[in-house]
Amino acid sequence: MSDKKKVCIIGSGNWGSTIAKIVGVNVNKYDCFENTVNMYVYEEIVDGQKLTEIINTQHENVKYLKGHRFTDSIVAVPDVVDTVKDADILIFVIPHQFVANTCKPLIGKLKENAIGLSLIKGFDESVPGKINLISEKISSLLSIDCAVLMGANIAKEVAEDHFCETTIGCRNEEFGTVLKKLLETPNFRVTVVPDAKTVEICGALKNVVAVAAGICDGLSYGENTKAAVVRIGLKEMIRFCNTFYPTPRIETFFESCGVADLLTTCYGGRNRKISELFAKEKNKTFEELEKEHLGGQKLQGPATAIDVLTLLESQGKEALFPLFVAVARIAKKEIEVTQLLEYLRQDPEC
Amino acid sequence: MSDKKKVCIIGSGNWGSTIAKIVGVNVNKYDCFENTVNMYVYEEIVDGQKLTEIINTQHENVKYLKGHRFTDSIVAVPDVVDTVKDADILIFVIPHQFVANTCKPLIGKLKENAIGLSLIKGFDESVPGKINLISEKISSLLSIDCAVLMGANIAKEVAEDHFCETTIGCRNEEFGTVLKKLLETPNFRVTVVPDAKTVEICGALKNVVAVAAGICDGLSYGENTKAAVVRIGLKEMIRFCNTFYPTPRIETFFESCGVADLLTTCYGGRNRKISELFAKEKNKTFEELEKEHLGGQKLQGPATAIDVLTLLESQGKEALFPLFVAVARIAKKEIEVTQLLEYLRQDPEC
Repeated sequence: MSDKKKVCIIGSGNWGSTIAKIVGVNVNKYDCFENTVNMYVYEEIVDGQKLTEIINTQHENVKYLKGHRFTDSIVAVPDVVDTVKDADILIFVIPHQFVANTCKPLIGKLKENAIGLSLIKGFDESVPGKINLISEKISSLLSIDCAVLMGANIAKEVAEDHFCETTIGCRNEEFGTVLKKLLETPNFRVTVVPDAKTVEICGALKNVVAVAAGICDGLSYGENTKAAVVRIGLKEMIRFCNTFYPTPRIETFFESCGVADLLTTCYGGRNRKISELFAKEKNKTFEELEKEHLGGQKLQGPATAIDVLTLLESQGKEALFPLFVAVARIAKKEIEVTQLLEYLRQDPEC
Repeated sequence: MSDKKKVCIIGSGNWGSTIAKIVGVNVNKYDCFENTVNMYVYEEIVDGQKLTEIINTQHENVKYLKGHRFTDSIVAVPDVVDTVKDADILIFVIPHQFVANTCKPLIGKLKENAIGLSLIKGFDESVPGKINLISEKISSLLSIDCAVLMGANIAKEVAEDHFCETTIGCRNEEFGTVLKKLLETPNFRVTVVPDAKTVEICGALKNVVAVAAGICDGLSYGENTKAAVVRIGLKEMIRFCNTFYPTPRIETFFESCGVADLLTTCYGGRNRKISELFAKEKNKTFEELEKEHLGGQKLQGPATAIDVLTLLESQGKEALFPLFVAVARIAKKEIEVTQLLEYLRQDPEC
C-alpha cells in the first residue's frame, strides 16, 4: 500500500483553476503526494467541445483561467463521486450556495481519514439566526475534518505568480504541514495557524467591512474616515470571534486572512466598488447594482451583514457591533448611508 | 488657588494649528481647564504683518491653516518661555529636529507636575545606533512625564472636521482622562492606552513600511503583493516593539496609531508617493525627489529606516527585520528596488 496522499479538487472556476495550477506542480515536487489530481468540473460546452475534454487535452481551463497551463497531473472529471475516489485530501472551491448539493452524493463515499480543505468564503445561510461556517457544514455532512485557506488572494494575481501570502487554519498540526507543502510556492507564501474558525470568519466578515469602506468612498469622506471605518470593522471582526467563537488567537488577525485580506477588500474588490456606487446612486438597491455591474453575480457583504444582524438581534447583542448593524440596515434600506457615522460614534470602546 | 489646568501648545504649523482649533473649543467646554491657551508661534512676517498679530486679531493662522478660525482662547506668543508660563499641560507639535533647541530654554522654567503631550512623529536622530523616542527626549530634557498622541490624522481632514480617530498613549490613567477631555470631539475620537512607547514607535515605523508599499506601487506589483508587504511591515513593527521595548500590549496595534495610521500612510501619504516615483525613476535618489516634489521637505521613511538599520546591525538582529533592512539598503542605494521581495521571502515567520 502506498502512503502517498491522493489529492482532489472540487471546483474549477477562476480560483479553483488557479489552485489547480499550483497543486499540479507541487504534487510532482514532493514524494508524499500521488501525481494524479482529479478536478471536478461542472460539465459545459465551450466552442462545441466539452470543457473536461479541453482541459484534459490542452491542459488549460479556457473558460475560467485562460492563458495558464496546468501540469499533466490535473485531470478534469465531470462526476463529483468519481472525482473523490481514493482521495486523502479534498480541496473544496465552489460557490458557497452549492456546497450542500455537491457534498450530498459524496456521503459515505470517502476514504477513511480523508480530510477537507475549504477555500470557500462566506457563511452558510441555511440556519437563520445562527452562523454556520462552511467548513462546519462540510465536516458535518461528510464526517471529515475540514481545514480552511483564506488570504489576500485575488485569483488573477496568484495565477500570474505575483508575490503574496495566504493563511491555512488547521487544528491538526500534521495535516497543516502536509497542506502547506501542497500549496506553498516561492510566491504564494503559506502560514499555518491552529484556529481555523477565526480564519474562516475573517474571510466572511471582511466583506461587511468593505461595504462600509465603499460607502465612505461614495460619500467622499476622505482617508482618515476610511481608515477609522476599516479599523472599527477589524475590531468588530475580533469582537465577533470573541463573542461567538471564543477564544481566537489574537495573532491570527495579523495574518494574511486578517489585516491583509481586509486591506485588499476595502481598497480594491467588488464589495467596496458596488457599495461606493450604492452610496452615490441613492435610489438603487444592491440587487439592482449587482445586475448592472456584476452580471447577476451576488455580492457577499450585504447578505452576510443581514445574516449577522439576525444573529445579533436573536441574542440582543446589536450594541456591540455598530458597524455590522449599520451595514445590514443600510442594505435593507432601513437607514440612509449617511447614518453610518452616527452608528460608529456608538462604538463601545470609544 | 484655582485647580484649573492651564494648557499651552508649542508649535503652530498645519498640525499644531489644527490641534489648537480643537483645544480652543474644548477648554471652554469643560470647567477643568483655564480658558486661555498660549500657542508658541515662530515669528515671521506675512504680508507685512507679524504672524502672531494676525492670529491674535483675526483668530486664524493665515499661513498654515487658512480658512479655519480659532476661538478667542488661543493666544499666539512669539517667545517659547513666555508660552509655557504656569502651564500644566504642554502640547509639543513641532518638527522633530527642533525639539532640543526648543526645549533647552524651558529647562527649569516649568511648573511643578507639568506634563507633556507629544504629537511629534519620528525618532530622535541624536544617538546613532540607539533609538531614542522624542517623548523620552522631552521627558529627560525637561524632567516631566510625556504622553503621546498619534493616529490616522491627515491634518487637513481633521481641520475640516471629518470623522476620525486618534490614540493617546499615557501611562498615568488620570492624565489620560484629562487629555482625552482636552482633545476629543464628536468627530475626533480619542482612545487612551497605557503603552505610550508602542504608540510612538508605530508613528515612526509606519513610514518605513510606506516606503516598501510605494515601491510595490512603482513596480506595479498588484494588490495581493502590496497587502502582503503592508502586513509583513506591521508584523515587523510588532516584532520591533517586542525586541526593543518589551512588552507592548498587542491590542495597541489595533488602535488608530497602529493599523489605521499604517493604512492611510501606505495607501495615501507622501512617503508612499515619493517611493513610488523612486521605484519608477531608477536613477534618482530620495534627496533629489524630495527637492523636486516636496520643496525640500524631508521624507521620514528612508531616514528612519537607516536609523533602524544602524541599530539592528549594532545588535546583529537584521535577520528578524527583512523589510526594514531592505528599505534602508534601498534608500542607501546598496540594493535595487526589485530586490525587496527577495528580502521578504526571508521573513522569519514564513
